[in-house]
Amino acid sequence: MPVGTRATVKTLSPKEIEEVGSEIILGNTYHLYLRPGHELIQKAGGIHQFMGWKKPVLTDSGGFQVMSLKGLRKITPEGVRFQSHIDGSYHFFSPEKVMEIQNALGADIIMSFDECPPYPATKKYVSESLKLTLDWAKRGKIAHQNSKQALFGIVQGGVFEDLRQESAERLMEMDFPGYSIGGLAVGESKENMLKITKFLNKILPKNKPRYLMGVGTPLDLLNNIENGIDMFDCVMPTRNARKGTIFTSKGKMIIKSARYKEDIAPIDEDCKCYACRNFSRAYIRHLFSVDEILGMRLATIHSLHFYLKLIKAARKAIIESNFKKFKNKVALEIGSEKIV
Amino acid sequence: MPVGTRATVKTLSPKEIEEVGSEIILGNTYHLYLRPGHELIQKAGGIHQFMGWKKPVLTDSGGFQVMSLKGLRKITPEGVRFQSHIDGSYHFFSPEKVMEIQNALGADIIMSFDECPPYPATKKYVSESLKLTLDWAKRGKIAHQNSKQALFGIVQGGVFEDLRQESAERLMEMDFPGYSIGGLAVGESKENMLKITKFLNKILPKNKPRYLMGVGTPLDLLNNIENGIDMFDCVMPTRNARKGTIFTSKGKMIIKSARYKEDIAPIDEDCKCYACRNFSRAYIRHLFSVDEILGMRLATIHSLHFYLKLIKAARKAIIESNFKKFKNKVALEIGSEKIV
Repeated sequence: MPVGTRATVKTLSPKEIEEVGSEIILGNTYHLYLRPGHELIQKAGGIHQFMGWKKPVLTDSGGFQVMSLKGLRKITPEGVRFQSHIDGSYHFFSPEKVMEIQNALGADIIMSFDECPPYPATKKYVSESLKLTLDWAKRGKIAHQNSKQALFGIVQGGVFEDLRQESAERLMEMDFPGYSIGGLAVGESKENMLKITKFLNKILPKNKPRYLMGVGTPLDLLNNIENGIDMFDCVMPTRNARKGTIFTSKGKMIIKSARYKEDIAPIDEDCKCYACRNFSRAYIRHLFSVDEILGMRLATIHSLHFYLKLIKAARKAIIESNFKKFKNKVALEIGSEKIV
Repeated sequence: MPVGTRATVKTLSPKEIEEVGSEIILGNTYHLYLRPGHELIQKAGGIHQFMGWKKPVLTDSGGFQVMSLKGLRKITPEGVRFQSHIDGSYHFFSPEKVMEIQNALGADIIMSFDECPPYPATKKYVSESLKLTLDWAKRGKIAHQNSKQALFGIVQGGVFEDLRQESAERLMEMDFPGYSIGGLAVGESKENMLKITKFLNKILPKNKPRYLMGVGTPLDLLNNIENGIDMFDCVMPTRNARKGTIFTSKGKMIIKSARYKEDIAPIDEDCKCYACRNFSRAYIRHLFSVDEILGMRLATIHSLHFYLKLIKAARKAIIESNFKKFKNKVALEIGSEKIV
């Protein structure tokens, strides 16, 4: 899922989001609540109508964002009191309030309000946080009154397998239509991240989607798909693209590099995206070097197209019982941090 | 002609430039010479190929830009020595050099190197400047060796009718395929600008295009079309759009204004552009208020579409011998500085 924090996938039009192959995008409840406000979006006919995007949308719970407001927020069993990062104004998110906001935004898939513990955190902290998140999940499920929106529970528990198991099992008792895995990609090692998704693969129901929040590099996606993950969101392809780092089938390309100054090849020879069909590395490098917005647009288009093509290829490989081979081939070609 | 200073019409893709109805765009010789350099663009196959734009391109002579580098440039009969505004490096533009650059860029229509006198300037200054510009036009014509590029002469002479007449007649003796009118919209009154275009209308040949450089508001265009002008370029629609001032059929719209916060109508009810077909004022205002690039894109798309539709309507009105009535109707609807 490309990330459309403020009802726009940065630099792209909805037409382009569709053209790169997106089937669903993510919006951020915290940001949309503050600006332009969920009532306004509801009045405009919901998030799809407001932003001109006809396909599915998922909204997060805002939990991750308000927890990140260190010093500006206070957690109580009732919910979280926080100050806006924009103007310092005071607000309160409870599981019920977050459902009210997400019901108003009208996304197709919505999230339970959760506490995402920091990393590192003691087992005691994570365990207590988990109880809160489970209680909030229950309250959110009761408050959620729109059968057209699928509410996912969020599995927490840090890097502790027993806590993850407890979290998953309690949520499964509540019977959500899908399960998110939160609290990863927050600073722990890749080994720990994969250990947890592999562990949860044995526990979570096979017939319901599993969504790993905030991950990651192309190889992170494949490694986690191998561990049973179905859905991802990450700002990496779009944010890196805007800064001139483009994901390609051969690794990461730093397009501002002098080596591309006179390079009239497309970003990626085998790619069929709008950027690769029409423009050279030299042109896109020029756009970046003179700070022209079209550069960020073309880099974003290519990187998202690359990510989504990778995911489609992974799906195909799974269907053809060929995933392991596929993953190893991609890993060889891309490398995890390889710069082309 | 939308302005594509650095081989991109700011915020838009070539596909969008075409979709808004552009038949030709302008590129700036001074800027392209400095970055990425005309040799690179030539190596990439010329400006069309480099930027992925298949339709005609016009390049200016760079004269206006180097003359604007007050304190960083010295004019001699040979040409202009100047320092780059980017890094202070020294460069020299002569009529021959400017032809070499424009030949390399490969635009369909190119301009003679000219001195654009400041406003106000004494008649003596303008008269001497004019002699230089005429000499440079002659030298440029000799140096221009590409029959696929139409070289226009530039009429100068400030707000002095006799000097304008001299300029036009000397250039007509050299027999250019088209004539540009420079040195207007540089600070003189609208009355003075219109006085000069009206005056030149009687002098310039009827069977060749006349291009008024750097003009202007929608009404400026119509008033000058009435005075026989065929071509315009101006950053106004694109630059204003990026700052949130959008041209509409009812006047200028300051989209950031609080009055549009909950306004779910499109920018312009009667408009068929991508922005008006898909998005509300409330959404575009939201994008501007959170500094999202899509806001600038949509505002630019609408404003260019509006300008180009206006020009097409003007052409139709001329063909139907209905121009005066058409102009008066538009003037009533838009006003010259009316804010909707």
